[in-house]
Amino acid sequence: MSELDRLYSELTLPTSSKLVLLVLDGLGDLAMKSEGFLTPLEAAHTPHLDELTQESSQGRIYPVAPGITPGSGPGHLALFGYDPLEYRVGRGVIEALGLGLDLQSGDLAARANFCTLDPTGIVTDRRAGRIETAECQRLCRLLTEGIGTVDDVEIIVQAGEGHRFVTIFRGAGLEGPLNDADPHREGLAIPEAKPINPGSEKANHAAAIVAKFYERALSLIEREAPANGLLLRGITTQPALPLFPDRYALRAACLAIYPMYKGLAQLVGMTKIEGLRSVTDQFERYRRLRDEFDFFFIHHKSTDKHGEDGDFQQKKAAIEEVDEALPLLLEDRPEVLAITGDHSTPCALRGHSWHPQPLLLHSPCSGSDKLDRFNETSANLGSLGVFEAKYLLRLMQANARMFDKYGA
Amino acid sequence: MSELDRLYSELTLPTSSKLVLLVLDGLGDLAMKSEGFLTPLEAAHTPHLDELTQESSQGRIYPVAPGITPGSGPGHLALFGYDPLEYRVGRGVIEALGLGLDLQSGDLAARANFCTLDPTGIVTDRRAGRIETAECQRLCRLLTEGIGTVDDVEIIVQAGEGHRFVTIFRGAGLEGPLNDADPHREGLAIPEAKPINPGSEKANHAAAIVAKFYERALSLIEREAPANGLLLRGITTQPALPLFPDRYALRAACLAIYPMYKGLAQLVGMTKIEGLRSVTDQFERYRRLRDEFDFFFIHHKSTDKHGEDGDFQQKKAAIEEVDEALPLLLEDRPEVLAITGDHSTPCALRGHSWHPQPLLLHSPCSGSDKLDRFNETSANLGSLGVFEAKYLLRLMQANARMFDKYGA
Repeated sequence: MSELDRLYSELTLPTSSKLVLLVLDGLGDLAMKSEGFLTPLEAAHTPHLDELTQESSQGRIYPVAPGITPGSGPGHLALFGYDPLEYRVGRGVIEALGLGLDLQSGDLAARANFCTLDPTGIVTDRRAGRIETAECQRLCRLLTEGIGTVDDVEIIVQAGEGHRFVTIFRGAGLEGPLNDADPHREGLAIPEAKPINPGSEKANHAAAIVAKFYERALSLIEREAPANGLLLRGITTQPALPLFPDRYALRAACLAIYPMYKGLAQLVGMTKIEGLRSVTDQFERYRRLRDEFDFFFIHHKSTDKHGEDGDFQQKKAAIEEVDEALPLLLEDRPEVLAITGDHSTPCALRGHSWHPQPLLLHSPCSGSDKLDRFNETSANLGSLGVFEAKYLLRLMQANARMFDKYGA
Repeated sequence: MSELDRLYSELTLPTSSKLVLLVLDGLGDLAMKSEGFLTPLEAAHTPHLDELTQESSQGRIYPVAPGITPGSGPGHLALFGYDPLEYRVGRGVIEALGLGLDLQSGDLAARANFCTLDPTGIVTDRRAGRIETAECQRLCRLLTEGIGTVDDVEIIVQAGEGHRFVTIFRGAGLEGPLNDADPHREGLAIPEAKPINPGSEKANHAAAIVAKFYERALSLIEREAPANGLLLRGITTQPALPLFPDRYALRAACLAIYPMYKGLAQLVGMTKIEGLRSVTDQFERYRRLRDEFDFFFIHHKSTDKHGEDGDFQQKKAAIEEVDEALPLLLEDRPEVLAITGDHSTPCALRGHSWHPQPLLLHSPCSGSDKLDRFNETSANLGSLGVFEAKYLLRLMQANARMFDKYGA
């Protein structure tokens, strides 16, 4: 814990306020000439956001540090107030939690997906043509039943969405992190998963187990098509994170739909709320759960997905979908509402980026930046300036009047 | 190396992009009532910059830390991505390198210039009426031949431009840094060069050698006019810096005209390109060298010089000179172009200052801040916010897509 975190803790007061962090995944974008110098957020019709903006402050936040493009893990850890350089989480761990797998201490977890290999072992499609979930489930059963254990290590293979799955290695004396068994682009062979710290005996043992697993798994699916190979990433053991309710004195609920975000929220001690399918669901559930929790993390995925597809119109529509549902949330208005992304996913880049995401912060004491709209260009002019995402949660707490005065 | 630098290194990918850092020395200025509340950059006619601005981002960078006015050394080190608080370089070392002197390990180097003393030893003109280079050369020969060695320490005196020269003390057991033998303003006597860390035996030895050198040098020129005295500054031994090509995976060329900037670039491992006399030369040479290097540092001095003279019109003209030549650079447009200063040199202050300098960053993924012009006021509205100069190079790398994603 940093010195500053210790100070925040010392100053923390209880609150009866409700705090909502509404994350539009990959919200930030770039104004490009090809789109008339508008971002999807600027082009979107957002009457409810516009109205909210009248009594809000704005700013921009960068996820990690200048120029650093985060994955969803560091992006969300930062939004949850954890320094993403201090606290690192492997994607395998997050994904395993998100699939509802009950990780045990010492488990080595890896995010995995099926891929296509040519006869020489070169990866020709990293996503095996994005096979259906049912096919993925069939292949995962094949691996589970066909392998069982490697030496004394139990192998758990759990299908996710589409071509994605999770592998857990459960046994004594394993330790991550290992390098990805993933070339990260097509045209290369699958590299071996080697210990990142080669001095660790447990990590070397883990690498040996993973290598044996690979041998047996590949022979089990070698005649399948198109999914005749597999990639493992983020091969790590579960880290211990300070828990959200202790750290912030807030009972926290996760209203996410996608597994990874649920997993990440659970890792910091939020309560996962199940059975949500749309932003309307999420806002309604918030209203029903207001008495049980103080903090609500609401995650909207499709902004990011359309950004990754480079689909400007769909990203704009995904924003408008949230705007349309917004009155539901505002009917039982949380005292503190932050709306932002976990990173930018500019359509022009078709992927995550380092560009600071826009932030809107609304509370009875946010004041007004007197801006007409909430978007990247307005956010550049806001009173919050450009700052590191890890401070947002502290700002939300301050807006909930959760901090006593520092010094006399 | 900081934890964050290690992360940047880990994430670094190779690039085929060309990156240009165009430094208009001392570019930043202040909007004063006396000049109709315009800065030289705001008053300048800059049609090419204006056009570039349409597809660029802007921000402001402070060279070191709030309120810190840097010399050219820290100002440039920060632009080169080196924390100017972590990496310190004496001006003597830079100047010596810039004059083409081949510094040896353990050499103590000092930046020097002739000055005018009154009969009581008070400095009446810190630049000795800005004597001609030929006169400086004559006096330097006088010192070299007249002194030779002090105890066992070889004395090398090398003339620079105008009243400026460099002194190198070459011998065993010397160590810097020493305080400047320069009162930094007129009306005072020359102070003694004392060790900054008085506990160092080598530094005490160095101080004793410098004191003996002073005695002999002053007696050699006491009958000269107006240059009858000398000042030593930045008396240091050469530090080891991580080299630019290793640190950033970029082959770097220095297209500077003035010795000090060449020296500084050479110190971090850039290749000095010789024979440049104008900004047109510099841009043309960039075009010729595109295949040999990835990164080009182009330095334009006169903005700073006119700022130091308080000459608003000439500083404005110096900016317009760059703008006029800009199409040459843009014809073979680098993928990433950053235009900024190493610090502000406001005409009203007639010297370097701490005010953040404006920054323009242009790349295929800079997006647009939808600003009409590039200047201090526009830069205040930009998406890059206000940040420390040491991050600019990392942002340039990000814009060249040189960083892999951090975490999953």
